[in-house]
Amino acid sequence: MAKILEIEDYCKFDLDREKRTGVPEIILAEGKDPEHLKSIVKELINRGEPLIVTRLERSVFDSIKGLGLEYFEKPRIAVWRKDKKSADKKIALLSAGTADFAVAEEARIVAEELGCEVIRFCDVGVAGLPRLLPAVEKIKSEGARVVIVVAGMEGALPSVVAGLFDGLVIGVPTSTGYGYGGKGEAALKAMLQSCSPGVVTVNIDNGVGAAVAAALIAKK
Amino acid sequence: MAKILEIEDYCKFDLDREKRTGVPEIILAEGKDPEHLKSIVKELINRGEPLIVTRLERSVFDSIKGLGLEYFEKPRIAVWRKDKKSADKKIALLSAGTADFAVAEEARIVAEELGCEVIRFCDVGVAGLPRLLPAVEKIKSEGARVVIVVAGMEGALPSVVAGLFDGLVIGVPTSTGYGYGGKGEAALKAMLQSCSPGVVTVNIDNGVGAAVAAALIAKK
Amino acid sequence: MAKILEIEDYCKFDLDREKRTGVPEIILAEGKDPEHLKSIVKELINRGEPLIVTRLERSVFDSIKGLGLEYFEKPRIAVWRKDKKSADKKIALLSAGTADFAVAEEARIVAEELGCEVIRFCDVGVAGLPRLLPAVEKIKSEGARVVIVVAGMEGALPSVVAGLFDGLVIGVPTSTGYGYGGKGEAALKAMLQSCSPGVVTVNIDNGVGAAVAAALIAKK
Amino acid sequence: MAKILEIEDYCKFDLDREKRTGVPEIILAEGKDPEHLKSIVKELINRGEPLIVTRLERSVFDSIKGLGLEYFEKPRIAVWRKDKKSADKKIALLSAGTADFAVAEEARIVAEELGCEVIRFCDVGVAGLPRLLPAVEKIKSEGARVVIVVAGMEGALPSVVAGLFDGLVIGVPTSTGYGYGGKGEAALKAMLQSCSPGVVTVNIDNGVGAAVAAALIAKK
Amino acid sequence: MAKILEIEDYCKFDLDREKRTGVPEIILAEGKDPEHLKSIVKELINRGEPLIVTRLERSVFDSIKGLGLEYFEKPRIAVWRKDKKSADKKIALLSAGTADFAVAEEARIVAEELGCEVIRFCDVGVAGLPRLLPAVEKIKSEGARVVIVVAGMEGALPSVVAGLFDGLVIGVPTSTGYGYGGKGEAALKAMLQSCSPGVVTVNIDNGVGAAVAAALIAKK
Amino acid sequence: MAKILEIEDYCKFDLDREKRTGVPEIILAEGKDPEHLKSIVKELINRGEPLIVTRLERSVFDSIKGLGLEYFEKPRIAVWRKDKKSADKKIALLSAGTADFAVAEEARIVAEELGCEVIRFCDVGVAGLPRLLPAVEKIKSEGARVVIVVAGMEGALPSVVAGLFDGLVIGVPTSTGYGYGGKGEAALKAMLQSCSPGVVTVNIDNGVGAAVAAALIAKK
Amino acid sequence: MAKILEIEDYCKFDLDREKRTGVPEIILAEGKDPEHLKSIVKELINRGEPLIVTRLERSVFDSIKGLGLEYFEKPRIAVWRKDKKSADKKIALLSAGTADFAVAEEARIVAEELGCEVIRFCDVGVAGLPRLLPAVEKIKSEGARVVIVVAGMEGALPSVVAGLFDGLVIGVPTSTGYGYGGKGEAALKAMLQSCSPGVVTVNIDNGVGAAVAAALIAKK
Amino acid sequence: MAKILEIEDYCKFDLDREKRTGVPEIILAEGKDPEHLKSIVKELINRGEPLIVTRLERSVFDSIKGLGLEYFEKPRIAVWRKDKKSADKKIALLSAGTADFAVAEEARIVAEELGCEVIRFCDVGVAGLPRLLPAVEKIKSEGARVVIVVAGMEGALPSVVAGLFDGLVIGVPTSTGYGYGGKGEAALKAMLQSCSPGVVTVNIDNGVGAAVAAALIAKK
Repeated sequence: MAKILEIEDYCKFDLDREKRTGVPEIILAEGKDPEHLKSIVKELINRGEPLIVTRLERSVFDSIKGLGLEYFEKPRIAVWRKDKKSADKKIALLSAGTADFAVAEEARIVAEELGCEVIRFCDVGVAGLPRLLPAVEKIKSEGARVVIVVAGMEGALPSVVAGLFDGLVIGVPTSTGYGYGGKGEAALKAMLQSCSPGVVTVNIDNGVGAAVAAALIAKK
Repeated sequence: MAKILEIEDYCKFDLDREKRTGVPEIILAEGKDPEHLKSIVKELINRGEPLIVTRLERSVFDSIKGLGLEYFEKPRIAVWRKDKKSADKKIALLSAGTADFAVAEEARIVAEELGCEVIRFCDVGVAGLPRLLPAVEKIKSEGARVVIVVAGMEGALPSVVAGLFDGLVIGVPTSTGYGYGGKGEAALKAMLQSCSPGVVTVNIDNGVGAAVAAALIAKK
Repeated sequence: MAKILEIEDYCKFDLDREKRTGVPEIILAEGKDPEHLKSIVKELINRGEPLIVTRLERSVFDSIKGLGLEYFEKPRIAVWRKDKKSADKKIALLSAGTADFAVAEEARIVAEELGCEVIRFCDVGVAGLPRLLPAVEKIKSEGARVVIVVAGMEGALPSVVAGLFDGLVIGVPTSTGYGYGGKGEAALKAMLQSCSPGVVTVNIDNGVGAAVAAALIAKK
Repeated sequence: MAKILEIEDYCKFDLDREKRTGVPEIILAEGKDPEHLKSIVKELINRGEPLIVTRLERSVFDSIKGLGLEYFEKPRIAVWRKDKKSADKKIALLSAGTADFAVAEEARIVAEELGCEVIRFCDVGVAGLPRLLPAVEKIKSEGARVVIVVAGMEGALPSVVAGLFDGLVIGVPTSTGYGYGGKGEAALKAMLQSCSPGVVTVNIDNGVGAAVAAALIAKK
Repeated sequence: MAKILEIEDYCKFDLDREKRTGVPEIILAEGKDPEHLKSIVKELINRGEPLIVTRLERSVFDSIKGLGLEYFEKPRIAVWRKDKKSADKKIALLSAGTADFAVAEEARIVAEELGCEVIRFCDVGVAGLPRLLPAVEKIKSEGARVVIVVAGMEGALPSVVAGLFDGLVIGVPTSTGYGYGGKGEAALKAMLQSCSPGVVTVNIDNGVGAAVAAALIAKK
Repeated sequence: MAKILEIEDYCKFDLDREKRTGVPEIILAEGKDPEHLKSIVKELINRGEPLIVTRLERSVFDSIKGLGLEYFEKPRIAVWRKDKKSADKKIALLSAGTADFAVAEEARIVAEELGCEVIRFCDVGVAGLPRLLPAVEKIKSEGARVVIVVAGMEGALPSVVAGLFDGLVIGVPTSTGYGYGGKGEAALKAMLQSCSPGVVTVNIDNGVGAAVAAALIAKK
Repeated sequence: MAKILEIEDYCKFDLDREKRTGVPEIILAEGKDPEHLKSIVKELINRGEPLIVTRLERSVFDSIKGLGLEYFEKPRIAVWRKDKKSADKKIALLSAGTADFAVAEEARIVAEELGCEVIRFCDVGVAGLPRLLPAVEKIKSEGARVVIVVAGMEGALPSVVAGLFDGLVIGVPTSTGYGYGGKGEAALKAMLQSCSPGVVTVNIDNGVGAAVAAALIAKK
Repeated sequence: MAKILEIEDYCKFDLDREKRTGVPEIILAEGKDPEHLKSIVKELINRGEPLIVTRLERSVFDSIKGLGLEYFEKPRIAVWRKDKKSADKKIALLSAGTADFAVAEEARIVAEELGCEVIRFCDVGVAGLPRLLPAVEKIKSEGARVVIVVAGMEGALPSVVAGLFDGLVIGVPTSTGYGYGGKGEAALKAMLQSCSPGVVTVNIDNGVGAAVAAALIAKK
């Protein structure tokens, strides 16, 4: 009695997901056959289902461009929705360096699709506390109760923020940085090892996961 | 003008932490000099500050037993509080196997110290869905909006739960399991790789971190 | 007195292999010199030996296309056989996400070449139990005694299936997923750490290995 | 309507497991609280349920010795069964070195508990082919269709055996060997990388997993 | 013509080392045969050579106690010097948590033996900026040009300090923290990935290496 | 009251950094959006701020070529400065193989931009001591107090140099070498494990970090 | 007084190396600047020095083709020598699969350049003992005292050969194989873990290292 | 027709091994059941077979002390031989630090048992070239054609020696050193990455493997 949309033999789309879990199915384009992806997108738009497609390369997007999705190049994400959702929740979003911009964008777009207003500050890493402290003050004064913190390299930002903020910090390590501990490994480890309680984390570059988690909380 | 309690040259206790971040300082006993630990605990109890001490071996606890803390042997945790806090929040807690019991206990105790009522089910791992499904139904009917899911070995439980539940899932991998991927490594990776959006994670065996995060959310 | 087919100085093809081990030699194209590959394929077809060539890039296949092999693009596999083998065995095949499609295809094609009828369900991952449970019921009602389970990301599917099924589960982790534990690492670890006894595994993306193992069992 | 035996709040024993999956619940002692273990064992014996307890240290066994289990010291395993099961299946078991003895014993005992007759050869590693070849001949002449191959260090034995045998090879890497690749890591990798198709594997030292898999196959 | 002190066949002590490299030989006790260690220490004291012995367990120290070295239990270090060296250099030393105390002590003792005055602050980790900022101000006002920063867990302190200080930061990761990235791994990676230029690092728990480096710089 | 240059919403350039930390902000091009990079560079040159841009691919440089930066192709670095800085400090620079040339160049260029005279020897690895020993003698006779040592593969050079030299050795592992321990991993580990005290290290290929550290020391 | 050929500031070629160490300098092309490589090759040919250049991509070779070197495409190696050296030593060379061909070729060419006659068998992996045993018999009857064994995937061949042969086995793991333990990692570990004494190893794909070692031994 | 000595069901001792491979079976005590070990040793001494038992803990040796083996405590090795073998081969042995003493002893004892005269120098690591260079000169003047080089920490010694010596260098990394790259990992990687051709390696702490390899070569 679950509502499953079967598309040939390769896809069983779970139409009940939003009702059951609070979040619609989000499509990870990476690794999928472009033909399969196209059929899924077409079918869902026909049914008026809201759509979020992540890690979608420009070249693959081009092949489905005609279907009406809005595409964001740097975060490689596309969205579609019949009617704009109103923003009835509030979250904050901080990112450490300009190289973390794309992942922060992914988080922002997904959060907005899920009905969040996003208070956002970029390039406020720990090497420059004079940039960071006013941003945290602003977040607190706005009354946000959850902040997504995007950081690569040594990934210290969530620890510092959690020492200053009284809501939940969701860390998103990014795959910036080279050499030992590069590609997000140091950042992920730092967030899991945070000496400040109140930090949870998602996987490297997983802006979408952080946004979903934040939206579930803000929904309450 | 911050309130710092200095104890000789080795400790600067942050008395403003709860006001600033919503959570009092939690003391990690592991790695600390037992003499240092004793002085810190004594000083804080004298001031009437609430206390949570984690990863506290029985032998170390014995040396501070006289100070009045309540000790839980399996999760190696001790707490002290002048007056019992009332439970004004509600969270759920699931654990996969009987070997995950101690970490789940750590999460339960900390959550209760921070004012949560905890709805809890043990030994409901994915190898036996008939045990798991009624537990998830119960959590939903109780109206909990966040569930801590403790699991070792392959760590599949958070993914399965997040596919059935419409609140936030905080995964806690545990250091059970031997061989390749043992000691919590497979479980941590599984939680970070979860195909169900809405799962965040803390480090291996970090029940306290999950409890703090859950309490911050439930506070809203 | 073993039957070895020597092709110049770089190849000694083991013509007795099927008789000795139940499985003909399967050619891994990856890493081989295309010229060497071409000579081997040509020689074997001339002798009427059945052929399976795996991990064969389209560009390499193009250079041997004239020889009569049937090519499957997504799983990068080519087969040739004088006479169609009859299917005297039955196995089941489940895959978790649409990104696992190619590896599942590799397993299906090899299993069919080795004489198996394959009962198959795609996109039945653990995030959506309502899709999975009917598939497992179908497999049981069909009387299959072995099921190949293909899954990437957190690789939880074999554990869940083995908790519901009374035959052997052969797990195939796939190299889907990014970040920590990505490229199949979390999935492989999860399968080796499975809390459900009765799960064995092959290497990441090794659909062919799972199919051979399943066919050897079903042969009995 | 599933039959779950609840023991206080920490254990939900799945009494339907054998019917549903072909294998009774097997209890991993490691990581469990000895008091919990004792209660579970006592309860199951009272109900006449067959019992296998693995990775059970001598000191823990001593505390439950009175309950009537048979204990094997080297493989750290204990079993109990009201009536001896008849052996209606046949499997083979090879181990490479004398240091692999305990894991091979674990596999043998579990396989016998599950109704297998076990044809077994120890100390037949690849460094001495003159010891190995007659053992493989014997297995073939006995008509076994599945062989468990236990090997540590470089773990080459399953590959060599699979090149000589026409049934399934289930590799069990053991945690022997020191230095780089030690503790079973080289052996596990070698089995997953086997150039001989028809090899599947379980985790390091997981003799019980191999025995269960073999028994499921031999059951057919 | 180099001055080598040969002690039986197992030791060639390099008496010219201080002249050639600015630092006397420092003896790592760990891994050495206690009898060998005793002979080396005895011989050097007889010759009036200054002595630093690191990672010296209490039980081993007890066997050489009679020789006159001063022993520090927590950092497991022993020193001996005919005449107290005057402190003609100045360095700073910060440590993040009370669990980092022993490694910071190791650095302090070695630095003092090499002629440094050490300005030191403990327990000033990034989770509590109100404790850290005054310490950095003090260091700057004292005119120190190099600061050793000792930190475990996520190891964020060197990055934050280097963003506030205009001398060299030598990071020392410590083996505190459990789970993924524990035992100093996250901290080491964080220091190598620091987004603040001007941070160099030594190995995990290597307080002695940091002290030597600092003393060589301050010597200039 | 800190001087922050905001460029749209993605960049907050820290103009006070040199005053506060002794080093101007150095721009890591890798991972940045080329459009963002271009705006930052343009804005800074307009303000007459000195500029160092590292890990700048030729194709990206071409898009900002018109702005007046000097580009070095092998080390992928670009610099700009209104007036040439006079060299009031002296450092030495050794590199082990010709494949380490680009990283050594990166270090040399940054050091010169920060006001250092650089005494330099290339291709003096440990496999040929007759090439190395005269170089070390020259460095000592020139009175340099810090030497940057760039080495890939086994990374032994810093240990050998530190055994001959009485100043600080800053090791820079390079990503040369293939197979196990390749891409700089062996070299980094070797430098952190150096048996010669007085060696500190920066991350793999991080010539810029070593140059900044050296310049901070030489500044004193 | 050592003979060093300096080429500008980036190269110091060690002309005494063959006299001092028994082997001329061998040039690793990978990672070197093509212009640097060209100058070095030109200069050495002018002086009549014998030349071996390894890991030389075709595109780079094309730019120095005019200088007279002989190029081998699959092993990416080029050699030059005024007069053919006579083969006064004898070694054996075995390789496991056709994908190991290029690395085996590298070893053969280098060994021949260093004066070895090479007895060689390809495609004699452990999955087919009937191919391997006659090859080992032939090597023994030829009186070779050292055998280079090239193998990827599980790398079992050196262990099996060393159990049959009474000379030295030099294992060369190759970067064949995918998934866990792929790219030569399983093979390297297997060789280091070999249960047959008398196996030494070089790094993954390092055919040149094995050939040099073999030639040094055969020289005696 | 091979001579196999069967001891109950757990051991098949290969009495032909020395004839077939040039080396008698060497018994690794670690991981073996002490009762099994005792029976094997007793049986072999009764037959007058020469015996080498490695990694034999003192407590285990004590239980077989009566059988007449000579025991060396630091290298944990025991030997037995009816008649002293004459030394008809010559090898050299260098070790880097005093902590490498035990592994060097293991290599020396095994090499002597196999008929080698061993020229040996301890504590000649690369941090003190003045100690090392005379040792290498001595080895060359003695005419040794193979040198075993034992080194932990950064493991640079084999590279330096191979740059000065014209025979084969067999590197033995030792498990000294702590932190990142500790326990022999940096040393093993360094030896495999050696920039000096002519270095082969065995696993960490595997002195016995190096000695066997050296003896096979010196036999020629």
